Amino acid sequence: MKFLKKSVAAVYGFKAMGKHMGLKKGKKDLAIIYCKNQCNAAAVYTQNKIETPIKVVDKKHLMDGKAQAIVINAGIANVATGKKGIEDAFKMAELTAKELKINTEDVLVSSTGYIGKMLPMDIIAKGIKGSKKLLHKNHNAADAIMTTDTVKKEIAVKHDDGFKIGAIAKGSGMIHPNMATMLCFITTDADLSSAELQEALGKAVDSSFNMISVDQDSSTSDMVAIMANPKVKVDIKEFKKTLNLVCKWMAKKIAADGEGATKLIVSKVVGAKTKEDAKVAAKAVICSNLVKCAMFGNDPNWGRIMAAVTNQDIDFDASKMDIVLQGHVVLRDGAPEKFNEKVVSELLNAEEVEVVVNLNMGEKKATAYGCDMTYEYVKINAEYHT
Amino acid sequence: MKFLKKSVAAVYGFKAMGKHMGLKKGKKDLAIIYCKNQCNAAAVYTQNKIETPIKVVDKKHLMDGKAQAIVINAGIANVATGKKGIEDAFKMAELTAKELKINTEDVLVSSTGYIGKMLPMDIIAKGIKGSKKLLHKNHNAADAIMTTDTVKKEIAVKHDDGFKIGAIAKGSGMIHPNMATMLCFITTDADLSSAELQEALGKAVDSSFNMISVDQDSSTSDMVAIMANPKVKVDIKEFKKTLNLVCKWMAKKIAADGEGATKLIVSKVVGAKTKEDAKVAAKAVICSNLVKCAMFGNDPNWGRIMAAVTNQDIDFDASKMDIVLQGHVVLRDGAPEKFNEKVVSELLNAEEVEVVVNLNMGEKKATAYGCDMTYEYVKINAEYHT
Repeated sequence: MKFLKKSVAAVYGFKAMGKHMGLKKGKKDLAIIYCKNQCNAAAVYTQNKIETPIKVVDKKHLMDGKAQAIVINAGIANVATGKKGIEDAFKMAELTAKELKINTEDVLVSSTGYIGKMLPMDIIAKGIKGSKKLLHKNHNAADAIMTTDTVKKEIAVKHDDGFKIGAIAKGSGMIHPNMATMLCFITTDADLSSAELQEALGKAVDSSFNMISVDQDSSTSDMVAIMANPKVKVDIKEFKKTLNLVCKWMAKKIAADGEGATKLIVSKVVGAKTKEDAKVAAKAVICSNLVKCAMFGNDPNWGRIMAAVTNQDIDFDASKMDIVLQGHVVLRDGAPEKFNEKVVSELLNAEEVEVVVNLNMGEKKATAYGCDMTYEYVKINAEYHT
Repeated sequence: MKFLKKSVAAVYGFKAMGKHMGLKKGKKDLAIIYCKNQCNAAAVYTQNKIETPIKVVDKKHLMDGKAQAIVINAGIANVATGKKGIEDAFKMAELTAKELKINTEDVLVSSTGYIGKMLPMDIIAKGIKGSKKLLHKNHNAADAIMTTDTVKKEIAVKHDDGFKIGAIAKGSGMIHPNMATMLCFITTDADLSSAELQEALGKAVDSSFNMISVDQDSSTSDMVAIMANPKVKVDIKEFKKTLNLVCKWMAKKIAADGEGATKLIVSKVVGAKTKEDAKVAAKAVICSNLVKCAMFGNDPNWGRIMAAVTNQDIDFDASKMDIVLQGHVVLRDGAPEKFNEKVVSELLNAEEVEVVVNLNMGEKKATAYGCDMTYEYVKINAEYHT
């Protein structure tokens, strides 16, 4: 496998663009990903129960499993905007279709930013106009969906079998203090049906984006979409492996760039009785404020890790549990293990920290990705005023 | 109803004491609550799944529904201490029984503090010795269970029917960065069986201590116990009402004193379809880091409140939801309501802040208590080293 440049546009047939249209001061706030022909497509949405305009439009436009373009605006989420919000989302698809000379039903829409503000449709219309000629292999779509992100998130890979997968993402640096939205848009030239894409995407999201957390609150606007320009015959197993890899890479990137974060926390739970137990326990560790604060302070505080895990409704036996921090055993068979606290504390002072919990109850395992909790996190989320 | 002084010792037959024995530097760390005769008793423990030595001992000693004393140490939690830990907990009950000249089976034990450290039994033995003569109506048991608490938590009330209820508590300022333990010990002279006490206590805890959160992590050592010296015939309904009131008063006190907190957040959810929905939604608001940070910043950020509620698996219709902050409607029928942000922000700058969410789906309601998230919270939990 080879890493490529140009992310979503590295794939055959795709171009993209990012521009400033005026929803955000002095920053790019409109992105379009476009393929020269119709693609098979699939999407996964936030687990937040609100039915947003975006979901209404995209579910309708994906009923035939086809798409040719995705238009994304940053700055306003178009959530809690009533019937007018749904009309606006359809209008945004229509304006994009007109500009690109494609079918409205082949346009997916995504919005991220403030909750409770209407999209200013005049600015949207002016912004979309003329964007076709900006579409390019050398694009800046990833910039246009960034907000408080401190790192641009894009990747493209070419599998040895010949197919490519490209992706851009934003999050979980909060897009706006109103929202912590995670977006990821993926392109590929794999010749797969929308049903195959949907299944592969669902599984990949499950072990990547669904295993990260910055603040436990799911945004109303989270979305991962994939468009496949069906050019390359693929072994679906190989495709799935590669898609998983791309999604995990993005998920780690997002977790590490969590608001105010100084480090990535990789939480591995092994020896679980069931896969679900492993997932629940791994996520519990990265979701615990107490663990997150301890990691910020380079504190090998395994008691908090144990409490986070044992708070969950999983099968465990405290007298069998092991905990390993950065390779150092700190708990063995449920009893404290003597370790050099100074040494482990220094090892925790790293960009990436590994916490391994062995439940010793079975063979299942899972990994979750999170970040530490810092003064900066509180600052970002408290010092802003609506 | 009348408020009394002396908390647990305000009740007929009870005395208490608090002293320094040496588990904590220069601070009181041993408390005993004692009744001159055997009481009916009941207890509710943490929902954390770990079977701690405390739970093993107290469940055994409460099998007959009787108790005469509670001994509590602060500084070491006696959790993750293996078989020796269980032996130590039984030994602590035995030493206390010997000192007080009562049955070992009538002593309940509670420990709070570090996870993974053995109790130094020589210090415990020396500490318990001579404590009988310190038992007094004018006691400082509430001081001896305090740790990072900034406010002592004690209350006693006398019902117009004649019965009394007294209580001391600690939490959720974390007792130690290893632990966020909430403890509450209640005395009464109501003539009720242990089964009646258990039922009343369970219900009271459900709508009080189970409705507060500082950091979502349940401690392994949370415990609420009640001892009733059966002297006063009571109307059980009146008793339950009064016990609820005492437990809610304590719960609010604990939430307001959460680590680093500057204010109490009272989250009321009304108009829910089921009681469970109301509870889940009310707790979601006080558990959201984003809401907690917004409250610290006096930010009327209703989008975060809506996102916290709509993330839950409850029955709602976004187009029916109302949100009221400090008496000001900010969301009506799921649409943003115009309000003076400066005025509401100033109102949020208070010791107690009220958030009301009306789901407009039914008649059920619930209230949860929490606190804001501050720099101080991160500091307390990050700057400490194991």
